[in-house]
Amino acid sequence: MAVFTPVSQDELQEWLNHYDAGTLQGMSPISSGIENTNYFVTTSAGQFVLTLFEKLSFDDLPYYLHLMAHLAERQVPCPRPVANKTGQLITLLCGKPASLVSRLAGISQMHPTSEHCRNFGQQVAQLHLGALDYPTRQSNPRGPEWWVNTAQKIRPFLSTDQRHLLSSELTFQSTHRFDNLPRGPIHADLFRDNVLFEGDRVSGIIDFYFAGHDAWLYDLAIVVNDWCMTSEATLDPVRVNALLDAYQKHRPLAPGEAQAWPAMLRAGALRFWLSRLFDLYLPRSGELLHPHDPMWFERILRHHKDSEIRWAL
Amino acid sequence: MAVFTPVSQDELQEWLNHYDAGTLQGMSPISSGIENTNYFVTTSAGQFVLTLFEKLSFDDLPYYLHLMAHLAERQVPCPRPVANKTGQLITLLCGKPASLVSRLAGISQMHPTSEHCRNFGQQVAQLHLGALDYPTRQSNPRGPEWWVNTAQKIRPFLSTDQRHLLSSELTFQSTHRFDNLPRGPIHADLFRDNVLFEGDRVSGIIDFYFAGHDAWLYDLAIVVNDWCMTSEATLDPVRVNALLDAYQKHRPLAPGEAQAWPAMLRAGALRFWLSRLFDLYLPRSGELLHPHDPMWFERILRHHKDSEIRWAL
Repeated sequence: MAVFTPVSQDELQEWLNHYDAGTLQGMSPISSGIENTNYFVTTSAGQFVLTLFEKLSFDDLPYYLHLMAHLAERQVPCPRPVANKTGQLITLLCGKPASLVSRLAGISQMHPTSEHCRNFGQQVAQLHLGALDYPTRQSNPRGPEWWVNTAQKIRPFLSTDQRHLLSSELTFQSTHRFDNLPRGPIHADLFRDNVLFEGDRVSGIIDFYFAGHDAWLYDLAIVVNDWCMTSEATLDPVRVNALLDAYQKHRPLAPGEAQAWPAMLRAGALRFWLSRLFDLYLPRSGELLHPHDPMWFERILRHHKDSEIRWAL
Repeated sequence: MAVFTPVSQDELQEWLNHYDAGTLQGMSPISSGIENTNYFVTTSAGQFVLTLFEKLSFDDLPYYLHLMAHLAERQVPCPRPVANKTGQLITLLCGKPASLVSRLAGISQMHPTSEHCRNFGQQVAQLHLGALDYPTRQSNPRGPEWWVNTAQKIRPFLSTDQRHLLSSELTFQSTHRFDNLPRGPIHADLFRDNVLFEGDRVSGIIDFYFAGHDAWLYDLAIVVNDWCMTSEATLDPVRVNALLDAYQKHRPLAPGEAQAWPAMLRAGALRFWLSRLFDLYLPRSGELLHPHDPMWFERILRHHKDSEIRWAL
């Protein structure tokens, strides 16, 4: 994590006095997460997650917290932010913007079966449809403009071969913008570790802090690139079809989306290839013990590029 | 993490005064790790990892720290513990046993190719051979006795089918003890995230806190169960062979080991199925945000059991 902010029981109880969330019974720091400080908090009223935002500012946060509240009201299983006694979702704790949200049960499925993919695909559609009437709009902070800026920064660290791949992909993507595809608020980071299951059922979708307005198909490409890969960086058609079929039961794809799919899979791989290169070569002041390997998404990108996949959507 | 211990720059500098490790230039908490508090530490003398042990005691630690020092002297790329001015590897910091070790470069390969497996297999052999003359002996703390005790604790949470699998596997393993197989100190937790690479080359092997004396083949089974699986919980023969061939260039397997291999693969899967069930159903006071899914190792165990695999060792 960039910074970890220690919070004492006394500081937390004092902060909780401004909430109708019971009296503090226990707290425990959470070791996951690289952008924020997180604690599990148990009170007489239930179980919560406390987040102190180490990088996002007071101005950034309402979009994400209100989106979670909006979705939770529409039965999407995401954390429900708790407002304080004056109705605020974000307040100061230990000098940092902080929020309290409901804690969700379940565990991540790092090795999803087609049944997990089916149930998750359905939830992705519910998330997209549920967010459609969310009134605030924020563009995707990791969109094409960010790709181009980030590519400039990491280019010096790449091999000739990688530079060529990156340049040609940016050119390809610049000629494949899909401004007319159906869109709305997307999660944009629906990796397996951001989804919780109880058995085969999705019990939680967490970590909305990359959300923004973009093509729904882009969200699906990010999902498929993480949930449906074999260990050889190729797509597993069984899981892809399970996920997309379940999604389409609730939100059938438009004809233009089927056409855009191969380019979107590449766009989804490009975005994470770039961010992992950036985290590896240009780490910020606080660091991960082991940054993710960028090579994985380079392989996925090459796979998509070479195989010109056209799934029967 | 169970507990995270905040350490101030002043506290750390005061502690470092007892070491010949330069003056403190920076420190940053590490979010990985569930058993200990870890910081990256930069001094005028180099880069280090500071660990405060939250569960292991002063009595437990010498075995692990001296094993790392022993291996580092034998060119195994593991963290090298730094002794203080009076020669101690473990001293108190903020009331906790603490150690300073060299920080290793590299990143984990969560999607290893056969080339990664080849290079890692060679290092596993070097680790086994290098540890052979380590003078202290400690039995593997997660061996058969622990399996049986843990099985009793988690049995109430299992389905009938799982109980049956567990009972029959414990019975099978009790009739397949391999006390005569070659052995020595083993790492016993050589998962992909405990190994660092620079390119294809192994640059680090970390986290020795499950090490103990056991059959070398058991260590190999744990490795293969993590490094060589497909997304369908089956073994990938290409990676298995790359890893074992490279291992055998330095430490050829004995005839009895080839015979024991199928049972060892099952033993390796059983051990992590049990610990993940335990972490899921009986979490300790401090918790992981998302415990690992025990189902993955249940699938691996069933795969080994069903397929009666006999790799050409």
